[in-house]
Amino acid sequence: MRVLVLGGDGYLGWPTSMRFSKRGHEVHTVDNYLRRRVHTEAGTDSLVPILESLPTRAAAWKDVTSLDIGVTEGDLCDWGVVERVFREFLPEVIIHYGEMPSAPWSMKDREHAVETQRNNVLGTLNVLWAMRDITPDAHLVKLGTMGEYGTPNIDIEEGFIEIEHNGRKDTLPYPKMAGSFYHLTKVHDSHNIHFTCRIWGLRSTDLNQGVVYGLETDETLLDERLATRFDYDDVFGTALNRFCVQAVIGHPLTVYGKGGQTRGYLNIVDTLQCVELAALNPPVEGEYRVFNQFTEQFSVRDLAEIVKRAGGEVGIEVIVDPIENPRVEAEEHYYNPKHTKLLDLGLQPHLLSDELVKHELGVIERHKDRVIMDHILPRDRWRPPPRSRT
Amino acid sequence: MRVLVLGGDGYLGWPTSMRFSKRGHEVHTVDNYLRRRVHTEAGTDSLVPILESLPTRAAAWKDVTSLDIGVTEGDLCDWGVVERVFREFLPEVIIHYGEMPSAPWSMKDREHAVETQRNNVLGTLNVLWAMRDITPDAHLVKLGTMGEYGTPNIDIEEGFIEIEHNGRKDTLPYPKMAGSFYHLTKVHDSHNIHFTCRIWGLRSTDLNQGVVYGLETDETLLDERLATRFDYDDVFGTALNRFCVQAVIGHPLTVYGKGGQTRGYLNIVDTLQCVELAALNPPVEGEYRVFNQFTEQFSVRDLAEIVKRAGGEVGIEVIVDPIENPRVEAEEHYYNPKHTKLLDLGLQPHLLSDELVKHELGVIERHKDRVIMDHILPRDRWRPPPRSRT
Repeated sequence: MRVLVLGGDGYLGWPTSMRFSKRGHEVHTVDNYLRRRVHTEAGTDSLVPILESLPTRAAAWKDVTSLDIGVTEGDLCDWGVVERVFREFLPEVIIHYGEMPSAPWSMKDREHAVETQRNNVLGTLNVLWAMRDITPDAHLVKLGTMGEYGTPNIDIEEGFIEIEHNGRKDTLPYPKMAGSFYHLTKVHDSHNIHFTCRIWGLRSTDLNQGVVYGLETDETLLDERLATRFDYDDVFGTALNRFCVQAVIGHPLTVYGKGGQTRGYLNIVDTLQCVELAALNPPVEGEYRVFNQFTEQFSVRDLAEIVKRAGGEVGIEVIVDPIENPRVEAEEHYYNPKHTKLLDLGLQPHLLSDELVKHELGVIERHKDRVIMDHILPRDRWRPPPRSRT
Repeated sequence: MRVLVLGGDGYLGWPTSMRFSKRGHEVHTVDNYLRRRVHTEAGTDSLVPILESLPTRAAAWKDVTSLDIGVTEGDLCDWGVVERVFREFLPEVIIHYGEMPSAPWSMKDREHAVETQRNNVLGTLNVLWAMRDITPDAHLVKLGTMGEYGTPNIDIEEGFIEIEHNGRKDTLPYPKMAGSFYHLTKVHDSHNIHFTCRIWGLRSTDLNQGVVYGLETDETLLDERLATRFDYDDVFGTALNRFCVQAVIGHPLTVYGKGGQTRGYLNIVDTLQCVELAALNPPVEGEYRVFNQFTEQFSVRDLAEIVKRAGGEVGIEVIVDPIENPRVEAEEHYYNPKHTKLLDLGLQPHLLSDELVKHELGVIERHKDRVIMDHILPRDRWRPPPRSRT
């Protein structure tokens, strides 16, 4: 297949590109280096060193495997870029990671909120129009997030829910209660994509992904030049990865508030499996389907305990230190999201284990001199200061 | 109250501004003349002549009533404009009509779809941030649309629905299935606004409005310089108003497809009543509420029959001529949206009557030499041409 990976320079985009290339598919990647720019501006960086650009990474890949990965350095909000890539590459599958992925970044201030929604929503609109006019039979595999659903008091289904109401029934999009301007962009994308499937007959799989952890895949292990980025800072770092770094450097694990916030999690190797399963089993013309993409759920407290225990086993004393929650979210809540559709397609989960955490601690240990200490604690509060009423 | 009317130059924005001004409120309006520009580019115009700018309209209002309406000619996507207006005027109520309002315009091509979502979603984000930082206790009365819901096979509730699922219950946002890139912007706005009420404690009323008809209000009748615009073209004209124009000029009524498309409708004088009721009965801090704003529902076929009958009574022979539907929509469907919340607040509906249609036909008759004949039929099909499969 001709596989177009949007956001191919990212934490997941680069390993996904290598994975499809290794399996014999023709791969082309697009990235505008938004995340690298944000890191540079903030003075943060990936813990694991990565090569300086996509062409360099593709050259290393070629050197190691003799395989080609095509590269376009460009912005999905630039129609000229999108149109050229679609016309020249004629993708059969589009794996779309190409969005600004940070909730805290989107909540910093007005400029960041507006830029997040502009970048994500309008870039994806360009992709949909390119599909309509150039590759109407292609399959869009779009990365969404479990955060689109929020934390409702009923079971979360996979994208749609059958509602019986006043004696009638319909199956409708599952209601959305996203928790940041970033998560809201994924909600907006979902509505836009669903619409284009209904009206133009496009086909799409929306992968509502949980929080991804881990830093190695079969392909990153082939050569250290093929490593993927690993973020642990307050903007791009996610709970488990950040806790592991904190454990290694002797920093208390920063549980936000009560720590009962429960989410779905998955190993990066399962992200690659899921995306591949979606790509190999496309929906029919006009179909918009949603898979909840995670393998198990944990509260933040659970994760801290796991890291503390695994740390203890390798001689690291881990302190858990709850801090005031910078976000606005329920800290204790019901959470029961379904996630059977990818299992039905053959997903073999790699569950979280003490062994895995211990291994991750070991890898981090090797890079710990690169940790930038003053970008681990959250810098932005999501609620404005109390009002001075008149 | 200090009432800020965004989109104050529009079909509804201008009569709304005059209404609040007449009732003793301090009114400030903002408009970027987007609709006037689109008309100029397309070679179309309002049937009823209107004054050339908001300052001229405000001057005429002052001349007739001795009352002031403040004016800012500017764009809500320009933060400098939004911040200045909020800081100087300190609104207590914001009536937000300031969006690109046409479904066909948003469906023309990629540029129009992207521009619609950029303009509407990002402009509203600016308004929300201005409220957060400058007037956190103000009340946002936001114009949404009944089109956010689409045509589900169950009763449509007002914004939220109680769902019982696997033995548990929650009240969640009503699922959305909008039918154009324009309608989708209202869905995106709803999600963004709901979020800011939850997280920042803003208060907002989202008015999911049906199709508005009519061209006169108490204030437009005071002086012909105070008239509001009346659109009948394929881009901005809505079903009943367009049918009345077609009847007067001897053009067959263009029912799209089977004509079973059923929607909520209301008289422009009821729009003003509803907006005023919402403004005078604000939600509490942090509350996001949704009212379905229409008074009765009709199918397109029903409307054509009403216009035909009323036309007959004033000696106009009206022909109904179904044409191929340029849109993609269900032409026969279940439709039962609730609309009791505004009635509970005291709305006194002005229902559609033959008398009203006959009066509207008479007003149109006076202006019929202004009708631009070649912009009545739809020019844009929403579905791409059939695919040439390879």
